[in-house]
This record gives sequence, structure tokens and C-alpha cells, in this order.
Amino acid sequence: MPKISPKILKGFKDYFLKEMAERERLIEIASSVYRKYGFTPLETPALEYAEILLGKYGKEGEKQLYRFRDPGQRDVALRFDLTVPLARVVAMYPELPRPYKRYQIAPVWRAEKPQKGRLRQFYQCDADIVGVSDLAADTECILIMNELMEKVVGKGEFVIKINNRKILNGLVEILELPSVQISEFLRILDKLPKVGKLQTKKALQNLGLSQEKVNKTFEFIEIEGRPDESLENLKEIFKESKQGKEGIAELIQIRRYLKLAKVEENACIIDLSIARGLEYYTGTVFETFINDAPQVGSVMSGGRFDKLIGMFSDKDIPAVGFSFGLDRFISILSELPKRKEGKEISKFQTQVLITCFNKNYFEQSFKVSQMLREKNINCELYLEKVTLKKQLKYANKREIPFSIFIGPDEVKRKGVIIKEMKTGKQEFIKLQNLVSYFLNS
Amino acid sequence: MPKISPKILKGFKDYFLKEMAERERLIEIASSVYRKYGFTPLETPALEYAEILLGKYGKEGEKQLYRFRDPGQRDVALRFDLTVPLARVVAMYPELPRPYKRYQIAPVWRAEKPQKGRLRQFYQCDADIVGVSDLAADTECILIMNELMEKVVGKGEFVIKINNRKILNGLVEILELPSVQISEFLRILDKLPKVGKLQTKKALQNLGLSQEKVNKTFEFIEIEGRPDESLENLKEIFKESKQGKEGIAELIQIRRYLKLAKVEENACIIDLSIARGLEYYTGTVFETFINDAPQVGSVMSGGRFDKLIGMFSDKDIPAVGFSFGLDRFISILSELPKRKEGKEISKFQTQVLITCFNKNYFEQSFKVSQMLREKNINCELYLEKVTLKKQLKYANKREIPFSIFIGPDEVKRKGVIIKEMKTGKQEFIKLQNLVSYFLNS
Repeated sequence: MPKISPKILKGFKDYFLKEMAERERLIEIASSVYRKYGFTPLETPALEYAEILLGKYGKEGEKQLYRFRDPGQRDVALRFDLTVPLARVVAMYPELPRPYKRYQIAPVWRAEKPQKGRLRQFYQCDADIVGVSDLAADTECILIMNELMEKVVGKGEFVIKINNRKILNGLVEILELPSVQISEFLRILDKLPKVGKLQTKKALQNLGLSQEKVNKTFEFIEIEGRPDESLENLKEIFKESKQGKEGIAELIQIRRYLKLAKVEENACIIDLSIARGLEYYTGTVFETFINDAPQVGSVMSGGRFDKLIGMFSDKDIPAVGFSFGLDRFISILSELPKRKEGKEISKFQTQVLITCFNKNYFEQSFKVSQMLREKNINCELYLEKVTLKKQLKYANKREIPFSIFIGPDEVKRKGVIIKEMKTGKQEFIKLQNLVSYFLNS
Repeated sequence: MPKISPKILKGFKDYFLKEMAERERLIEIASSVYRKYGFTPLETPALEYAEILLGKYGKEGEKQLYRFRDPGQRDVALRFDLTVPLARVVAMYPELPRPYKRYQIAPVWRAEKPQKGRLRQFYQCDADIVGVSDLAADTECILIMNELMEKVVGKGEFVIKINNRKILNGLVEILELPSVQISEFLRILDKLPKVGKLQTKKALQNLGLSQEKVNKTFEFIEIEGRPDESLENLKEIFKESKQGKEGIAELIQIRRYLKLAKVEENACIIDLSIARGLEYYTGTVFETFINDAPQVGSVMSGGRFDKLIGMFSDKDIPAVGFSFGLDRFISILSELPKRKEGKEISKFQTQVLITCFNKNYFEQSFKVSQMLREKNINCELYLEKVTLKKQLKYANKREIPFSIFIGPDEVKRKGVIIKEMKTGKQEFIKLQNLVSYFLNS
């Protein structure tokens, strides 16, 4: 047979034990929080009709779509995100209870230029509330993000920054920006935490804003939202802008709800520079930053998008939600100086390698493996007779913490030798004490 | 905006709460058993280079492949199974410890004609041991299947049928079949449990076998393998066939291992009619049947395939494993007369809906929701003021077992009214007793 050389597509990745364990740990934390708030899981197919997926992201998105003709000549594509499939589901199943609170944790595909941390297949975690206009829903999303971040990164180690698109629209009104400039204006603001003030000022000038307007913009977005008075002051600025006034009122209401929830003062703050690049947001927007990793930007974000979920229906359907890229999040967590380690890896780890002394003693090794497995201790039985050295090398390579030897002596004495791989320490343990040895270690 | 009518591709499916909960329950059972035996998880990308995926399944497989040019004009395809990606991984990462025992639970895509229970995207659960020739590995696979089936279907409710391809090759030798007929001959045997004896006999005749050879075939495959003597007798039949003799010896060795493991006598039996349609099997083969659902055929199967995993390497690599279609398995389980229910659905279920009396009392409802969530009780807070009737209708639609009311009276009395949705029974519970009400119910 002619050999084909094995290779993987650029921008794609294989995931082994450690990454899978960390991914499962985060999925379990996230979904347990979602469920606590009444969210239910959803899975949609990887492939959808292309016409379903197109249209939301414009030309730029289209270029990144894995789109093709299936064997039945249908125009199909791999999903680009989990929001458009949600819109399809909401339109296709009118019998779904509303509010519909769903979470979906699943891969999406984007034919982006691969760059550090940017893969072409990656897991998204989305949680959305469909069918509720009340700001209690926006608040609930912030609370869930807050709880998730507390569990994963730790209390006091992150900040959720909240803003409202209507406020930014109000700013646009005040600045009297022509409508063609608006989305670019918001995109520039969105990049502020990443590129810094100087760059942002330059970009605004390049867009055509006068020095006065640039200054006005910065005066505005630098208003710190924490003391309620600053929000009250903003009302004065926006007295001529209906949208601006609405946005301020909404932010004040969310602050009220958050106080009710006794969320840490510093964990959820108002920041008028938060814009969110995507055009479909209509109200509240939020982003989350890890104190020890400001350079990576937001790790979890979302907002209200009342015009999108109805895209396949006859009318607008209010919705609010948030999302994070699981693989990116994991890689950021792994580089944090203070890492909150998960214990759950032990669930995946093989606790002990039971070596094979020789074929005559295989029966004994086999029985020991069965004994441990009955008590749910993960163990591996070495299935062939090779040199002991080779077997121990294997245990080390697999990072299995213990190994067991059973030869003629051990059989006579009704026990096993246990070796702790890290220290090399060996001891004889009676068979009847073996299970408790592992359950207590 | 012009409305696009929402639709899903034929052969694809959306999965909601109940199916997701059942899927997660089975994944958790399966992966915990795999881990107990020292297997580690793997995830490979959905997309691979087409040339990697082609070649294993021949023309028939190629037709079913979702193959296309990606935006970079690469010839790519969605994975068809999890075995070829495993072969790629084994070849690409020579540093992987051997034996390499991995499990992968993930969707695969096949552009098949949709028929009942046959979807175009479905989850496969694969567990394979790479790098071990010893039959201890084959036995371990059977033990894992046995444990999995005991946990999911119940002891005594299934049977794993074991055979060896070398025995069938021996039969082919004895029957002196021309080599062009062999694979079709095996395919016909493979269908025996589904189509019955009469059909199988006809098919063998149509293939060109004489009446004598058809009879000989049936004499052979109807030898019951349970008493060891029958296997000993077979040795006589195969005295002229090296392959046949090897196969018998291997089966006898596996029986020995299974006895050692004290597996239920009736749970794992030898059945010489088990062929497995796929051509790549080289030794042990096994299939699993549920006693109460013989008509669906095998639900979990596999075998030894020593020529496949090395397809991207310079040499053969021994391997043995098994696989089951998760979605198909779930749908079969759901139709069993005696269903082994999982309790795990409660993990997903929302326990209680906290209704919204009116906006003035929202604060109180909100506090109660926080209190329950702190104790990890899944609850949903109704986020808007709508009629109580509408809120209760929602709870029923969502099958939420309890609802809570908090109005002026309840606030005064420092408690809530709890309604059990099924019975309609209502009672007043003090706030300090609320958590224990749910933890004990």
C-alpha cells in the first residue's frame, strides 16, 4: 500500500489527556452554573444550509465560512457561531417554552488566518435568554458570568465592565457623526483596551473627527461609572438625546439589580468605553477582564441583541446572552501567574500501573486490576511481557503516579509491592489493604 | 430584511434537554469505565485532509464523504469515523506512550441515505488499544464492553458474541472458496442475525456455493462455543488449516482470560457466525446484542485490526478496540420494555420556578433565587411581570416540578408558598426551611 504522510490541517489541533481534562473541568463548571439559573442544553448540527448562516456577518464573515456543496448538491456550511443556529431553532420550534434559556458548548469553524491562539475549529460556550425584555435578564447574564469567573479565576481576580449601546448611540448623536462613520467609530472604541489611548486618538483623527470631538469622546468614555452621581451627571449631557437618556436609565437599573445581588463592588463596574465590535448589540454590553492578564483583552462577553434572534421569524425577539471561547480561555488560564488548579484531573488520570512480571503471574496481576477497578480506581494493567524497565518507562511517560509488582514472593505473602514513581519509595502492601491505600492516598 | 425560512438539513437533528441529559449520562458512564482501564481521552478535528480519510473504505465510503475544497483550496473532508484519525495521530506523534489506549466520543459525518435511526451526523464512542498483540488486550475490550452493558442495560440482559476472523478464513480454506468470493461470503454471514437462516442460505447459493458447501457452512457456524469441548473438536476440522488452528487457539485463550475475570457465563459466548462486515479485522471480532431487542442487531462491536493503524506508518501496528453509535444506542435504550432509568436527569432539570408577583416583590423573589442557587439548587426566576397563569403554564411546559410564590403576605410571614405542580398541593414554608425542603425532596 502506498503510504500517505500523516498530517493535520493548519489551524486545527489534536487534544490529549491534559487539555481534555481541563476542557471537561471548565465545561462542568460552566454548565452547572447555567443549569442553576434554569438554562437547558442544546445541540445543533455542525452543518447548516448556507443561506441560514449567511447574512449576519456580511462579506467579512462570508469569506471565513467553510461553505460547500454536499453530495446532494445542497449549498451548506459549517456553523460559524452558535447564535445563528439559536435563531433558527427559535423560529423552527414555536412550541419551545418562552423565555427560552439555553446553553450550547460546541465547536465552531472559521477559516481565519491562523495566528497565536486563533484556531479554525474552536469551542464556544454560549448562554442566552430569549424572549425577555426586562433588564433582569441582562443582570442574570452578568451574575452568571460573575459566578463563573469566581469559580474559575477566583474572587477579586477579574472585572466585568458594563456599558449600554444606547449610550454610545447618544454619544454619536452628540458628536453629530455621519452615519457611515458610526460602526467604524464603535470598532475603534472597542479596541481601546488593547491598543491604548494614543493609538485610539490617532484612529479617531484618521476617521475624520476634529480634535474637539476626539477630546469630547475621551472626556465621555473616561467618566468612571462606579459612583452613581457620575451616571446622574451623564443625564445632563444627554438631555438632548433620547437614546442616551434611555441607556443611562438602563445602566442605573442594572446597577440597582446588581446591588440587590450583593455582587462585589469591584467585580462589576460601569465602563463607558466598552463598545463590543459586533453590530447586532442593541442595549447592555459587557466584557470581562482578568486582572493578571489585561493584555489578552476580554475573555467573556456579550450583551443584548433584540434584533437578531427574530431574523427567521416575523418579528423582533428580545434576547440577551454571553459567550466565551473555551480553548482560548483555557490557554489564558494556563498562563496566569496564580493558577487555580482543578483537582478534577485525577478523575482522568490513571492512578497505578500494574506491571506484568511474566505470563505465569499475569493471572495475579489481572486479579489485582479487577479488584481496584471494582472500587473505581483507574488503573492500567500492562498487557504484555516486556522488560520491567520498559514498563516503568511507560508509567513515567504516562505520568502514572504508582506502579505495582507481583512476583512469586508477593503471591506467597498475599500482597504486592507498590512503588511511588516520584520518590522511588517501595513498600509491601497486603492485598486486603490495597484498595484503602489508594482511596486514602 | 427579507426573511429566510428556517430549516435544518435532512438527516440532521437538534437535541434538546432530555436527549442531551441522556447523552451526557451515557458519556459519563462510558468514559468512567474507559478511564478505569487506563484509557485517556482524545479529540481530533472534524475536518481532515481528504487523502487521509480516503482509501480505508473504498468507493462506497468515498460516496458518503462530505468532501470539499476549503477557502484555501485544500481538498478536505469531514471525518467519516474515528479510526482513521486515530491512525493519523499514532503516526504523527511517535512520542505517544505505547501501548496507547485512547477513547474518543465525538460526531462523525456520513452522507448516507437517511432512514429510520440513521442520521448524517451522529456520535461515535470508540475505545482502542494500540500496540499490544497479546490477547489480553482483546479480552480487556470485551471486559469493558461487558461492564458498560451491565451498567446501562443490566446484568443478564445482553450477550457479547465472540469469534475470530482466522476461523472464518479457515472455513473459507476448507470450503475452497475462490478469493473473489470471500468478502461477499463474510458479508452474507454477517447479516445472518438480521435476515435469518433461510435468507442466508439463499444468499450463499446465489453466491455460487453448492448445496454441500452451504450445509457445511451451517454445520460449522452453528457449533455452539460455550462448552470447551466443541472448540477442541473444531481443531480436528481445522487440522489442515493453519489459520483455522490459530483462530481456535486464540478463542480458547480468550475464554481462559474471561474465566479468570469471572465474567457471567452467559454474558460472553463464542458464536462462530459472527463475521463483522468490515474487511479490516484480522483476529478476534465481537458483537453485542440486547436480549429484549434482537431485531436491532448488534449495538456495540469491534475486534482486532492489526493492519489498519499502521496505514500512515512504515509498519503494521497491532490494535484492538470497539465502538458504538451513541445516538442509535440511546434510541434503542429508549424503546426497551424494561428501561434502566438514569437519575442524572435531575442534574439538568430546573427544580423550581420562582414566580414574579409584581415588580415591587421582584427583589424578594430574586433573593430567594440567590439563596437556592447558593446551595446548588437549579432554579429559574421568572424575569418579567406577566400573569401568574402564564408563568405557571411556562413551568408546566418546562416540566419544572415546583413553583414558588412570594407576595405581600409571604414577605410579612418571612416565607414562601410552594406549589407542587403535579398534585397542585400548596404549602407555606418559612425562608429558613426552604433549602432543606428541596435538598430532601
